[in-house]
Formats: sequence, C-alpha cells, structure tokens
Amino acid sequence: MKVLKEIRDRRSTRKYLDKQVSHEDILSVLEAARLAPSGSNTQPWRFIVVTSQDTKEKIVQADHNQKWMLSAPVFIVCVADISCRIPDSDAMLIDETEACHELKQIIRDTAVAVENILLQATHMGLASCWTGWYEQKEMKAILNIPSDKYVVGVVTLGYGDEKPTPRKRKDLEEIVSFEQWELTR
Amino acid sequence: MKVLKEIRDRRSTRKYLDKQVSHEDILSVLEAARLAPSGSNTQPWRFIVVTSQDTKEKIVQADHNQKWMLSAPVFIVCVADISCRIPDSDAMLIDETEACHELKQIIRDTAVAVENILLQATHMGLASCWTGWYEQKEMKAILNIPSDKYVVGVVTLGYGDEKPTPRKRKDLEEIVSFEQWELTR
Repeated sequence: MKVLKEIRDRRSTRKYLDKQVSHEDILSVLEAARLAPSGSNTQPWRFIVVTSQDTKEKIVQADHNQKWMLSAPVFIVCVADISCRIPDSDAMLIDETEACHELKQIIRDTAVAVENILLQATHMGLASCWTGWYEQKEMKAILNIPSDKYVVGVVTLGYGDEKPTPRKRKDLEEIVSFEQWELTR
Repeated sequence: MKVLKEIRDRRSTRKYLDKQVSHEDILSVLEAARLAPSGSNTQPWRFIVVTSQDTKEKIVQADHNQKWMLSAPVFIVCVADISCRIPDSDAMLIDETEACHELKQIIRDTAVAVENILLQATHMGLASCWTGWYEQKEMKAILNIPSDKYVVGVVTLGYGDEKPTPRKRKDLEEIVSFEQWELTR
C-alpha cells in the first residue's frame, strides 16, 4: 500500500546524537503544528521549546525519570489551552481529573498538532519521541504554565542515534468494521 | 519553510464529486491510521466505514444536520476504545461528562490516527473533513457502538468538488515560547 513515507517511517527514538538542531529546523516542525486542523479553527495548541540543561533535567525527573530523554538536544512541551473555548478559565485548575467536554476537545486538537510535529521531524531527517508519563501539576510548575492549561506531551527532538524497528500493530481486521460496529471489544 | 506537502495542502472539504472511492483507497487511509503512535502502543482506535445512504443520513442528522456531508461517498467513524486501558470497562458509560484520565489518553491517541487519515487522504488526492458536532449517545446508537466507546470524529472522504483557501492561523509568536511559559493567555 502506498502509505505516506513519513507516516510509515516515523519511530519513537530514545537515543540521540550529540548534535544540535538548528533554530530554523525547530521553527519548521512548529510550523507543521501551526497548520494542523482544529475544531472551529480554535487552535488551542501552545508550545514551549526547551534546550536549557537545567530545565530539561527537571522535566525528565517529572517525566518518570526517563534518563534517555536527556540525550535529545530539544524538548518541545506541548500544551492545550482551554481559554480558547472557555474565556473566563483563569481560575480553573485543569488536571487529570477534569471532566469538562472542552478539555477533551483541546486535547484532541493538540494531539493532532503534535502528530504533525512528529511527521515533519521525520520529513526533515530528525528523530523524535512523544512522552507523557508525568503529572500535570508537577510539569506545569517547572515551566510556569498557568493552572488552566493541560500538558498533552513532551516531545524529544534531535538526530537519532538508533534505528528502532517498527513496533507491532493490530491487523486492520481488528480495528475496522463496515457499516456498523462489529468489532470484538 | 519546507513543510511536508500533505500538512500544507490538507483542507476541510465540504463539497464532493459524485465519484466513488475504491475499496483499496479506503484501506490505504486506514492503513495510515493503523501506523499511528499511541501511548504504550495501546492502539485504542477503531473505525467504522459507512457508505450506506440510510446510515449516512442518520449520521448527518446526529451531526447537527450538516447536509453538505451527504455529498461525500464515504464516512469514517473514528472511535476510541477505553477497554484497551480499562479491561473491565464493559459496564461503563463513556460520554462527554466522563472524567477519567484514560479517556483523555484514548482521545489523544485516536486523534493522532485521525490526522494520519486526513494526511494520507491528501497524499492520495482525496478530500476529507473531520466533523464532530454530535452527542455521543446519539451517534453510538446509530452504529451499535457499545457504551464504553467514545466517538472522536466522523471523517467525510471523497473526491473534492471545491478548493478551499487556507484558513487563517495564529502566528508562531502567539503559540510558541522558549524555555518557559511566556505566552499571553
């Protein structure tokens, strides 16, 4: 099947070369995120580019101490901003326990933008990994992110120093049915 | 900037030619979804391909009666399955009001797979639009989707009969900061 090369070739890379990513290349992956679709074109995504060793270490500690992350020269912290949908959200504390529908919408839209980052990175010969093993409260404190935001992921970015083999996926038959739901649970 | 062509060219298309999409091409866009990354490789996405006029009409009615949808020959109903993360979810009623963290995770992952569908469609010269203006309860009833699933979107797919101009996006300065949160709310 003729699947888009970048979708086929993207891997979660957990080992990076000691080589910087140019500012221009960082802006290119963010440009790909910027062009993502979103509900009512609300564009709830926000990004923090982190290259400082000190901040990276704090992020890694919060992100379940995944030491391999530190080999990546750049972290992109991907944030969903509910104020795009709830104008008076300032006083809200948005975390893992929040139920509101708007949170589901901004996570959905920001996830789309993050996928664009991963595909654009692949397109440019860069490696990446989407991580998300932290608590909202802890991650937000490190980066001064207001309480009404939600951190959808931390993407590591750099030049890969490994070639991960593709991970196994369910067969199409396990995830697709026709005309109505006929899948096993 | 050298942004991936498919990311740059994707549009939300709301007018389609009266021309069928081949079964093979439908499988190709689903293959792109199948290859998406997901937390712990859980792959919580499920898809229902709908081409029956009767079912399409019911879906459109539930999806805020957006009549333009009916011009598309194919609908792909994109579903997130929480049983990938909560094995005993059978008795759960997952809808807009559900708070659990696992729902946020499966919406996130399924949104990524949906973006792959849109980009793969663009890659193949197909047009698409991600819609999501319905209530969970109503959409699930139409397609016999169990109560513990969450419908992340209905994607229309076909050959476009319009060339939508790009919609305005926020500038990078409005969505990106460096080292810490320094964006206006």
